[in-house]
Parts: sequence; structure tokens; C-alpha cells
Amino acid sequence: MSPRTGTGNTAELTTADGVGSLSRAGDLFQLLRDGKARTRAELALTTGLARSTVASRIDALISSGLVGPAGEATSSGGRPPSRFAFKPAARAVLAVDVGATHVIIAVTDLGGNILTERRLAQDVAEGPEAVLGRIIAEATSLLTETGRAPGDLAGIGIGLPGPVEHATGMPVKPPIMPGWDGFDVVRYVQRSLPVPVLVDNDVNIMALGERTAHWPEHDNFLFIKVATGIGAGIISSGELQRGANGTAGDLGHVRVPRGDEVLCRCGNYGCLEALASGPAVALSLAAQGLKAENGGDVLRLVAAGNLPAIQALRQAGRDVGDVLATVVNLLNPSVIVIGGSLGQAGEHLMAGVREVVYRRSLPLATTHLRIGLSMAGDQAAVLGASQMVTQHVLSPAVIEATLQATG
Amino acid sequence: MSPRTGTGNTAELTTADGVGSLSRAGDLFQLLRDGKARTRAELALTTGLARSTVASRIDALISSGLVGPAGEATSSGGRPPSRFAFKPAARAVLAVDVGATHVIIAVTDLGGNILTERRLAQDVAEGPEAVLGRIIAEATSLLTETGRAPGDLAGIGIGLPGPVEHATGMPVKPPIMPGWDGFDVVRYVQRSLPVPVLVDNDVNIMALGERTAHWPEHDNFLFIKVATGIGAGIISSGELQRGANGTAGDLGHVRVPRGDEVLCRCGNYGCLEALASGPAVALSLAAQGLKAENGGDVLRLVAAGNLPAIQALRQAGRDVGDVLATVVNLLNPSVIVIGGSLGQAGEHLMAGVREVVYRRSLPLATTHLRIGLSMAGDQAAVLGASQMVTQHVLSPAVIEATLQATG
Repeated sequence: MSPRTGTGNTAELTTADGVGSLSRAGDLFQLLRDGKARTRAELALTTGLARSTVASRIDALISSGLVGPAGEATSSGGRPPSRFAFKPAARAVLAVDVGATHVIIAVTDLGGNILTERRLAQDVAEGPEAVLGRIIAEATSLLTETGRAPGDLAGIGIGLPGPVEHATGMPVKPPIMPGWDGFDVVRYVQRSLPVPVLVDNDVNIMALGERTAHWPEHDNFLFIKVATGIGAGIISSGELQRGANGTAGDLGHVRVPRGDEVLCRCGNYGCLEALASGPAVALSLAAQGLKAENGGDVLRLVAAGNLPAIQALRQAGRDVGDVLATVVNLLNPSVIVIGGSLGQAGEHLMAGVREVVYRRSLPLATTHLRIGLSMAGDQAAVLGASQMVTQHVLSPAVIEATLQATG
Repeated sequence: MSPRTGTGNTAELTTADGVGSLSRAGDLFQLLRDGKARTRAELALTTGLARSTVASRIDALISSGLVGPAGEATSSGGRPPSRFAFKPAARAVLAVDVGATHVIIAVTDLGGNILTERRLAQDVAEGPEAVLGRIIAEATSLLTETGRAPGDLAGIGIGLPGPVEHATGMPVKPPIMPGWDGFDVVRYVQRSLPVPVLVDNDVNIMALGERTAHWPEHDNFLFIKVATGIGAGIISSGELQRGANGTAGDLGHVRVPRGDEVLCRCGNYGCLEALASGPAVALSLAAQGLKAENGGDVLRLVAAGNLPAIQALRQAGRDVGDVLATVVNLLNPSVIVIGGSLGQAGEHLMAGVREVVYRRSLPLATTHLRIGLSMAGDQAAVLGASQMVTQHVLSPAVIEATLQATG
């Protein structure tokens, strides 16, 4: 029995007749994305397409640079047939992680391999034109550095530290990003770099990056970022879930029982962020007379073996675990990865998370559940930004549109 | 910009070459599922398939009965070409809703239209052989009643009131179903009715049925059942989400702050089910000296205008809302439907839910959120069971396998 059906596929095909033929051609390329070399005859056999159709599509894919010759097959008499394969190095992707006070810019190939990377100190509160302008300038120099022309760029992926309407790429009332609300990031970037630009919030692309790089076989996957803010990136049935308005995963303002007296900056009491974020833990330590203003201070105290700081970090883990226990019952993931500056700093926070999740969640949901620290670390976001771009620009519909435009 | 890519499609095509050709043939049928009549030439143009391939596949689909002639197109000279369309009445589906104390059996067509329906009083605790034996006997008589032979049956969908491993169809430690743990439902039913049998928990298929029948345009949808148990069916990005082990949506044992003193039958304190389920509300009323043992008693008191019962039902709604506030922040659905015997009984429970969700969830996530009562009512489960079967038996891979077996 194989009850899962390809509904994504079905939905795409039944919307309009035109889409059917688009995905036919795109599929030829999707087959080749696994990197395996094939002859025209093999491709015709596998896809059911006419041999003349296969031949003309392979020509178009070669013109685009996405596919190239890959040696010859064994001949059954006569000139041996040519083989073709996907060339991930054909084009470059610009992957950008905008944080509250930093920007990481990477150039990757279409296979998600990072070719070069640059880190900048940059305050997101300087506004979109300052931040994006600097990114564009640095990107051009990075492309040159890797021997790439702007024309080699397949697309740009950008993660922002706040809610983003993914369909338009516009930030929606982001709390720590003055001047960004409703700013047309895509159009602004495309004025200088006219390629597809995809924008999402940082936690979503961290989830995408961590899962693609380290947990590709896990279709129900959760990434939790614990830093100045707290949020989750959700992958269910192998797909990143953004919800109806793109706000899925916003766990920072879920109520934690312990916090009934603690006022959050959102106006409610007892929000997770008011208890377990970097600034919140620092505040609780400052109240005990310790010198701590932010998450960085907390981590320094913990590294120095300060007992109250260790206890506070573990309690923050319990608070995060309290919310995750509900999430585990609801979504039944097989892996939870904890990242973000506070989250990836070590075992104390994770110990607290594990303690509560394994106590409070259903046994059926936790039997095979793994909870671990981020392995991608501070590269999770750029890896995810690259993945977001290749998912889009190498999709059947976009490949076909590209081929029709260039052919 | 259209950033959502058909990753489901991609994944399917890149697993193995063989799958590519399977989905090619299935796709021809997927096109026709919209009910629109098309000529062979139109199908060849749309799919990119060779005309001879289209002709032989149409012949196979006609042999299967799934597709039939549907008039003629206008001729451009010579004999006018024939048109073909999907025939939803070609086959029948058996849709079964097993509850704690009832069974509903329906016969539908492949379009989800209920042809006939029967309700039985039946205790699930009598065990799988008694319950399934009775279902098989009734099904045979229902098929005869609608003029169908067992050979017309395309598949059987069954919803059970407990956790089910969807891939195998086996119940997994279901609390109210003695004798069912690990029972091979699929094999038992197939001994009498040798067709595809798909099994899932009742809340999942209620979500599928309610959404398919009444909210098809909503891709991020949540169904909450409030009855003897409490659970959720989650549809994200248009797909039912079952999680890594099939336990997704199990909200009954999420902790509610108000309930810290209340012991649940699972051994934890403060579970939602221990506060807001039918028996829990009845217990709280009995403690006030009212005569109430179960959800039915609560509903009778509420219908009679009993003030403590109305207050208790509204408080149960607040408790459910407390958990849903977290779910809304996490999943950002556009619609929440409340069903189940207690849930669909009226406005009091829903008023409590709305009160807390709109107060505690993020404004961004609730701006367009709709919360309503079930419209499918007690047909939600059979509608969903039918939909689960047609999603499977009409999928590209299964259609192709069927055609190859019969052709």
C-alpha cells in the first residue's frame, strides 16, 4: 500500500491545460537534476516524450548552459550516442542572511555549494536602502572574486529578521526593522541585479538550509531559533510551511505558564520571548546583580562557569520546551534542531528543552524524536537562501519559461 | 513572481527513472479529472505526448471505464473528432466512519457524492473482527441497494477513533479500542473485499471531508474535534499533515495552564482532554450537584438553558482556545472549523474559543482568520474517507498501474 498521493502534482496539472505542457518539458530537466548522465534515447524512453521533442529540449537546455555533454554511452554499432547531465556550476546564486546587526553574503552554485562568503557588521535599523545598497555593492565584488559576471546569476535569496509576505517579498510590520514595513525589496534589488529575487524570514530559510544540508531524509522537521527573538521554521511532508499569511512558526508570543507576571513588549503577559530570549535571560541575571544586558553577555557568563547564568539558560530551555511539547504533539516531527545565537551555544539550553519535551509530549510522538543542536550553525541561513532560489529557478515551470524565452 | 515551486512533483520525478514514465500516463488522466471534455488532438497538444501514445492511453482509460466519450468537437472538415471526459459515476467508493459507539457507512461515487448511507449503533470495544465483519456485511447490502456489484468498488476508506499508522493502516495503542492495537485492518477487509483499503484516524478524515466539501480554496485549514476526545486534523499547503509517525494533531494531552491540579487518564496533569472533553465537562457539572455523566448530558442541560452548564461549556471553549492560540501562531491557518459532538452543538463553546484565540494569538495571524462550526456535521468523516480513497486510486501512479494491469 502506498497511500500518499502526489497531490501537489495533481493540483498543478488540473488548474489549467497550459500548465500540463509546461511541466512536461520541465520534467525532462527534473530527471537530469540527480546528476546522472543519460542519452537522448534513454530520456525519450523514460519520459514517454517523442524523440524529436527530447532532442529539441536537450538542445535548448544545452543553450541555457544548465545541461552539458557528459561522455558517450556504449555503442550498439555505429557512432556512440552522447550522454547529457546537469551542470550545477553553470550558474551562480547569491544567498544573503540579514540579521539584526550583521549581514552574511554568499555566492553558491546551483547545487548549494558555497563558493565564497563575506560577513559584514551592519545594523538592519539603518533601513532598507542602506542595507540593500551595501549588499548589492558587496555582491558585485564577490561575483568578480569568484570569476563570475552578473549575467551568471540565476537568482538571489534573502532572509530578513522579521515577518515577510513571501509571495511579494515585502516585510510586514517587522518589529526590529524600522523603515522596512511594506518596502518592495524585490523591486529595489532587481533595479541593480535583474534576476529572480526571493525573500523570506530568517527562521524559514534556516530551517530549509539545516534540513537540506544535514537532514534531507526527514520530511517532518522543525528548526527553532533562540536569539534576540524566538521563532520556528516548519517543514511538513517535505515542504516549508508558511501558513496563510506567511506568519507560520511565530512562537515568540506563545504564552508560557511560568510567565504569567512577565509583561512582553507585545502587550501580552507571559510570552515565550519575554522569558527565554537572550535579552530576557540577561534581564533575569541583571536582577540578581550580574552584569548582563544581552544574549552575548549571558553566553560569556555561562562560558565562565557562572552558576546562576547556567541555571537561567537551562530554565530558558525548559520554557522553550514547554512550548515545543505542544508543537511536538501537534506536528509529530522526527527531528527538532535548535539554533540561533543562544540555541547553538551549547548543551545547557538543550538539556532544558529535552527535559520538558520528553516529559510533556505524547510517548507515541517522542519515541523516535531527535532533538539536536544546529550543525549548519551560522551558515544555515545562506544555505537555505540558496536552496530557496534553486527550488524556484530550477522548477519545471520556470525552466520551461526560461527555455521558451531564450530558445 | 511565483516563488512556490512544485517540489512534490520534483521529488517524485527524481527518485527513479521509472517513475517518470508512470506519471506521464497518469497525467493524461489528471488533466481529464476536471470533467472537461477534450479530443485526442487537444490532449496531445497539452501534454506533449505523441498522438499514438495519447490514442492508446485513451483506449486503456475507456476500457477501465474511468473515461468515456463525451460528444463530438466541431469538425474542420471530414468526420468530427470525438471528445472524452472523466466519468465519476464509473466506480463506487465505500466510506466508513467508525466512532466509539456508532458506525456510518456510505457509498459514494469517484466525485465524492454520497449515493446512500447507513448508521449503525456499534460499540468499537467489541473488537476489530466484530466491527469490521458487520461493516463488510452491511457494505455488501448497501452496494446491492445502489445497484452496484462488489466489482464496481474502487476502494474503501475507513476512519477509526484512535491513532493509526497511516502507511500500514494499523491502529497504534488506541486508548478506547481494546483488541485493535496493531490489528491488520487492511488485510482483514481485503479478505472479503479485495480492493485498496485506506485507514486513518477519524479527525484526519473529518478535516479532509470538511475542507473538500466546504473550504476547498483554503490551503491552511484546521479541524478541531471536541467530543469524548479532543484532536485536530491539519491541512497545510493543501495537504493533510500526518507527521513522522501519524500522530500529528493529537492535542488532547497538551497542557492547559488552568488545569495544573487536574489529573488526566494519561498520567499527566492539566491535559486539555481532562478539562474540556465531554466527560470532563460533565464531571465538573456533577461536582456542582447536576446530573451529568457524559457530553450528551452536558448538551441536554445546555439545551434546557441550565446556566452552570452553559458557563462550563464556554469555559471548555476557552481551554480549547488556549491551545488553539498557540496553534494559530505556529501554523497560521486561514480557517478553523470546530466539530465533534460537543463542538458542533452550538455557539457557547465557539464563543469561548474565539474569546481566547483573538486575545492571545498574533494580530498578523488572526486578521483574516475565520473560526466556524462544522458544516459537514456528522457527514464530515465519510466525505473525508471517500476523498482519501479517490486521492489514492485516481493518483497518476495508481491509474497507470491499473491501466498496465488491465491493458
